[in-house]
Amino acid sequence: ICAKLGGEFFERILKMPPVLGELIAGIIIGPFALGGIIIGGFGPLFKIPLDSHTGNDSIIPVDYSLYFLAQLGAVILLFEAGLETNKKQFFKYLKPASAVAIGGVVLPFVLGVFATVLTGFASFNSLMELLPALFIGSIMTATSVGITARVLGDMGKLDSEEGVTILAGAVVDDVLGILILAIIVAIETTGVVSVGGITLIAVKAISFWFVLTFLGGFVAPWISNFFNKFKGAGVRVCLSLSLAFVAAGVAELYFGLAMIIGSYSLGLAMSSTQIKEEIEESLQKINFFLVPVFFCVIGMQVDLGAIFAGNASLFLTISFVVILTLFAIFSKFIGCGIPALLFGFNRLGAWRIAVGMLPRGEVALIIAGIGLVSGVIDNQVFGVAIIMTIVTTIIAPILLSPAFKSGKSGLR
Amino acid sequence: ICAKLGGEFFERILKMPPVLGELIAGIIIGPFALGGIIIGGFGPLFKIPLDSHTGNDSIIPVDYSLYFLAQLGAVILLFEAGLETNKKQFFKYLKPASAVAIGGVVLPFVLGVFATVLTGFASFNSLMELLPALFIGSIMTATSVGITARVLGDMGKLDSEEGVTILAGAVVDDVLGILILAIIVAIETTGVVSVGGITLIAVKAISFWFVLTFLGGFVAPWISNFFNKFKGAGVRVCLSLSLAFVAAGVAELYFGLAMIIGSYSLGLAMSSTQIKEEIEESLQKINFFLVPVFFCVIGMQVDLGAIFAGNASLFLTISFVVILTLFAIFSKFIGCGIPALLFGFNRLGAWRIAVGMLPRGEVALIIAGIGLVSGVIDNQVFGVAIIMTIVTTIIAPILLSPAFKSGKSGLR
Repeated sequence: ICAKLGGEFFERILKMPPVLGELIAGIIIGPFALGGIIIGGFGPLFKIPLDSHTGNDSIIPVDYSLYFLAQLGAVILLFEAGLETNKKQFFKYLKPASAVAIGGVVLPFVLGVFATVLTGFASFNSLMELLPALFIGSIMTATSVGITARVLGDMGKLDSEEGVTILAGAVVDDVLGILILAIIVAIETTGVVSVGGITLIAVKAISFWFVLTFLGGFVAPWISNFFNKFKGAGVRVCLSLSLAFVAAGVAELYFGLAMIIGSYSLGLAMSSTQIKEEIEESLQKINFFLVPVFFCVIGMQVDLGAIFAGNASLFLTISFVVILTLFAIFSKFIGCGIPALLFGFNRLGAWRIAVGMLPRGEVALIIAGIGLVSGVIDNQVFGVAIIMTIVTTIIAPILLSPAFKSGKSGLR
Repeated sequence: ICAKLGGEFFERILKMPPVLGELIAGIIIGPFALGGIIIGGFGPLFKIPLDSHTGNDSIIPVDYSLYFLAQLGAVILLFEAGLETNKKQFFKYLKPASAVAIGGVVLPFVLGVFATVLTGFASFNSLMELLPALFIGSIMTATSVGITARVLGDMGKLDSEEGVTILAGAVVDDVLGILILAIIVAIETTGVVSVGGITLIAVKAISFWFVLTFLGGFVAPWISNFFNKFKGAGVRVCLSLSLAFVAAGVAELYFGLAMIIGSYSLGLAMSSTQIKEEIEESLQKINFFLVPVFFCVIGMQVDLGAIFAGNASLFLTISFVVILTLFAIFSKFIGCGIPALLFGFNRLGAWRIAVGMLPRGEVALIIAGIGLVSGVIDNQVFGVAIIMTIVTTIIAPILLSPAFKSGKSGLR
């Protein structure tokens, strides 16, 4: 209810993307705000579940069932985005998208490390003392394509040159991101970096994506024909959806990719099949219900108070927040914008792409959660990373709408 | 995938209701059949979760997230059934429905107690020794309207005189059922029956249902108008759906009613509003995806092996299964059929109603689960109750289709 009311309020009264209203509704009703208030004889409305291993508050501060429902929404949203992507366009723009992704990984990582060391939350003295900075760098590289896909989908711009570049860029970004995370986790657990191990992870991730997208494209018409043999109510849409869940699960469980990359790639593979038109309408209705849950649950995970919970001085902490957030915005603008300019987009197009790559969203939350659980970063550094994530996730849709509203071409 | 394939197979090849294919697909892939087979290095596909309190296998043998999704499907299914019910018809047939429900509670209860004592699984020596029989009696009274609503919905017969009588009867049945369960639980925990306590439960349940259905009917047009002020994508359907979830939750948490009775009653209250037409199509698409999960998960809970796990002799156990199952069918046929005949239906109509009231479904599974957890019934008696539940749940849709296929009136 709150997600939908928030979305409607933002869309109609504030003339901003509804997804923003869903996010903020989540922050307001979440366990760290109104939802955490203890109601006499009832307890808080949204109780933070306990981690079954440690017995402390769970890293995911919402009920697992709710989180599960939210993840279904994310998987279906990106499956739909994949279906709506023009596959020829996708491969045409894969080169600029790769350049955008590489720029959008390298610069944020470097600036994230720099900001952490600058404010004294890590140091160059040893690899171990540098670990928190490496983690922050890794969080800075994240791109949550969910927000962007949603805003562009609502505006009917998923198929634009910039939209395709952003989505393809997010795929490449995710592959690079898991490589960086794998390297950092290897340093943390073994103290050394195994080139062979990292190469294996890279080969696995890239080849899975390759198989799903390229070879999937050849198999998709056959799958589409097979699904079309079924006549029962909703059978075709459910079978397609189930396949998306399988792709998402295999991507995350066995290949270390984000699950939304799995469902997006499957959607892309099926985007030129006959079944696409038939299932799109049903998918949309299901998304009406599930996608707002996803964005609301992202909002519910935001704990603005965590930043004041640590030992570092308030001044240093606030400096860290401000510097990291500014670097986060600046590094994606430059890191994604310059490659876009170099690969055929004009300034408007580069701006659109840079803004689209800005939101860190749930990808950053997940990496930050891994860092917190493993003890590499403390609650305070975690809180700083969360604020950076919130700010970039909230300003992206605010900037995206006007950037895409003018119908001008973003190509040179 | 399995639910949808099973449904399609039953509908097209076997010409039987798809819900049956979904149920049987669930039995086949569930944790007690194929899903329980340990795959090397992976474990079983569907692991039975552990109960967080006792550390034993959980009473609900499927992952909680999957169960949660199934319950969402059940709530939405009954909300849709409520919306599609003609409210005037409902109240017109509430009197015969009450008679049908009373007959369908009293006779199954008596015969359930009798069968349990007859086969030596309980005795009349003392109230405590009779408890297992009382529990079996209580399980026998259950009516799972989900199956019937689904089959009639698929056939477009929810609005028929018999359909309305069955749905209204299920509501009354549920109120009576929770009273019986409350009495048995009171006997079990305190050894005595408090008339005041039982009356309180009855008043609470009936007044909640009354408020939701009657007063809800007056408020519904206002709610419909309010929802119609919202223009965002899917806002109206999501708000209506959310209201159904709230009604379901309040019914179960605070008033001891089954949650599907809450969502059905809300749907009934909103069935004559303007918003109904608008949201029905979207609800249907959502149901395509969620409802098969519900029926498949019911199937997954079936443990056919449990019956051979106990101490009683095989002969007695098999006798108990056969007698209880025959009594279960017979008692609903007579208990519901005779009142239907007395209240204006002809033999065809009485047959339709009796068959519609037959499936015990998830309601019986829930009551049996309570009995098993509290130790009143053991694994073997539980297994017998489960087989009775499966048989009645599976034969109902087989009989329902042909009974409703002839267009003849069921009224005298």
